[in-house]
Amino acid sequence: MELNIEQSKLLELLSSNKKELDEIILEFLPTTHTSPEILNLYQMMRDYPSRGGKGLRGTMCLLWCELFGGKRQNALITASALELFQNWILIHDDIEDQSDLRRGHPSLHRKFGIELAINAGDALHGKMWELLLSNEMRVGARLTLKVLSEFAFMLNETTEGQQMELEWTRGNKWEISEEDYFEMVTKKAAWYTCVTPARLGALLSAGDDKINTLWDLDSIGETLEPIIDYGKDLGIAFQIIDDVLNLTADESKYGKEVFGDLFEGKRTLMLIHLIENSDPTERRKIEEILSKSRGAKTHDDVRFIFDKKKLGSVDYAKRKAQVYSERALSQFDSIVSSQVVSHSGIYQTTRSLIDYLTARDY
Amino acid sequence: MELNIEQSKLLELLSSNKKELDEIILEFLPTTHTSPEILNLYQMMRDYPSRGGKGLRGTMCLLWCELFGGKRQNALITASALELFQNWILIHDDIEDQSDLRRGHPSLHRKFGIELAINAGDALHGKMWELLLSNEMRVGARLTLKVLSEFAFMLNETTEGQQMELEWTRGNKWEISEEDYFEMVTKKAAWYTCVTPARLGALLSAGDDKINTLWDLDSIGETLEPIIDYGKDLGIAFQIIDDVLNLTADESKYGKEVFGDLFEGKRTLMLIHLIENSDPTERRKIEEILSKSRGAKTHDDVRFIFDKKKLGSVDYAKRKAQVYSERALSQFDSIVSSQVVSHSGIYQTTRSLIDYLTARDY
Repeated sequence: MELNIEQSKLLELLSSNKKELDEIILEFLPTTHTSPEILNLYQMMRDYPSRGGKGLRGTMCLLWCELFGGKRQNALITASALELFQNWILIHDDIEDQSDLRRGHPSLHRKFGIELAINAGDALHGKMWELLLSNEMRVGARLTLKVLSEFAFMLNETTEGQQMELEWTRGNKWEISEEDYFEMVTKKAAWYTCVTPARLGALLSAGDDKINTLWDLDSIGETLEPIIDYGKDLGIAFQIIDDVLNLTADESKYGKEVFGDLFEGKRTLMLIHLIENSDPTERRKIEEILSKSRGAKTHDDVRFIFDKKKLGSVDYAKRKAQVYSERALSQFDSIVSSQVVSHSGIYQTTRSLIDYLTARDY
Repeated sequence: MELNIEQSKLLELLSSNKKELDEIILEFLPTTHTSPEILNLYQMMRDYPSRGGKGLRGTMCLLWCELFGGKRQNALITASALELFQNWILIHDDIEDQSDLRRGHPSLHRKFGIELAINAGDALHGKMWELLLSNEMRVGARLTLKVLSEFAFMLNETTEGQQMELEWTRGNKWEISEEDYFEMVTKKAAWYTCVTPARLGALLSAGDDKINTLWDLDSIGETLEPIIDYGKDLGIAFQIIDDVLNLTADESKYGKEVFGDLFEGKRTLMLIHLIENSDPTERRKIEEILSKSRGAKTHDDVRFIFDKKKLGSVDYAKRKAQVYSERALSQFDSIVSSQVVSHSGIYQTTRSLIDYLTARDY
């Protein structure tokens, strides 16, 4: 994929935002303690936040704050907390999904054992709320509570989505309707990747001055309502592309194990399409392979499924991602047209984030 | 132990409070969903909160609110959230400590597997913060944020204490100083059992009216400061007695596995005393037994250590608990004497809670 100017500007922005947010997080997290055990906990808590990442969620939040005419500064704590959310929940997800790698390094429980990793995830989870409490100084008590409430809702959705996926794995369930699949992805990925970050940015544009004038916090739900559909569609498109990349990406850029999803038996739109469009004999063979434990799957097994997918399921998924991404774009334009957006630059950048999320090659 | 009138009144109060708080929790938690997987998550989230328990933390919070002249009603949400805190963290603790039983029934991960139990704990954790946000309607935004901040601090302490204990187990470390042991217990148990519940109660006595008059929320830290020492001493005494009960309690009342701590190899004051006061040969034998995995320990092994402890370590621990409990009582009287306590009944009940926590026989 060749980058146009808009996209290379976006990449630069993502990278500088991420750096800034990581600094806030790492400065906020505790560093020293006289107890060697607690010191070890602190190091575990700093582990995932030190591994980098793209900073998509934080940038989404910052851009939407500016898009709605707010001060970027007012959204910095919250954007950092979104990154922190991802960090703690990935610690737990990696245990639940038995993932060995995270951003090119062994996952936390592989390094320290499941027991300590669960506890470190809980400690980091607590730190997320604590960080969010420091919003009060900048944006006031009521807006701080609104932000917390968005986080609570996001966590409900994320854990519900995770439950759906885990139970499918546990119950060896392969016949999943697209509708159920989209519900799972919306809950597990769209809320915390797109819906909530964008809503939070818009909410925080109220900042310290708009709060008693333009924005009525009691009826703000209405203003933020259309962002839900935009974020769901974008999140679904993002997840589909993320799953496609797991089959086609260059491992050095991707940071995760290519084909890892197939070894893991992850339910993806491609797999659902493949199973739905296979004859009974083929379907039996596919499900048999997928049901093997991670270690029991051979490279030939995985290659067999990959080759099948290439016959149409990958293209099908890409087309679906395209549909969802276009819908997100038009919803975006409609939301923006109903707001006074002063900055055409911010409009362009936020719009190009949609392209980036749904047309990445790594 | 024969109950005096004060104690039987307290038992009744604990039981009726617990019932009231459980109702708030169970009414707050979601119940129905069209997705069978999410419905299952909801059932998992309701599992521990439906198992009963003594409700010590919630009652502590309610009593301290009244003790400081506040309205009990203003502390109900927070007292429920304290019970909810215990519920979610026990789900994760049971995984981390490999506990098979919780309140007389299989622990959540034994019923549903580790993966789903981690996720259900996270979901319930989120619900705790969400419940606390509903304080705003009753006690206002600023006091709601102060309460949240106490919870964040409590969680820091609890996860640090858990880390210390887990690392001792993992590193097969038996030579632990009393000082380190008390630090661990203070963090792991005293904060969430005593310090924070009492501080929260006192804080919430500010309620909806005192907030702008008697209490200055910016300097409230000072008012709540003496409660820390009281709560630490009480929490240590409580934990020591809890560990003694694990050796001496009647299983039907106790709800946990008697001798479970010995099978688990839990570090207790008794064990630290025993190891410190054994000759090298004996100490080697004791550590050898304790270092065996849970399944590899025989009943004779456990009985050997129990018999040794009976020689002096149990009495030593009881005496220590007595010292800490008396200190807590005198700190309590000193805190109360500096406050205008209208109700002598509440004073008596809160004081008898100290006796109850440190002289239970089940």
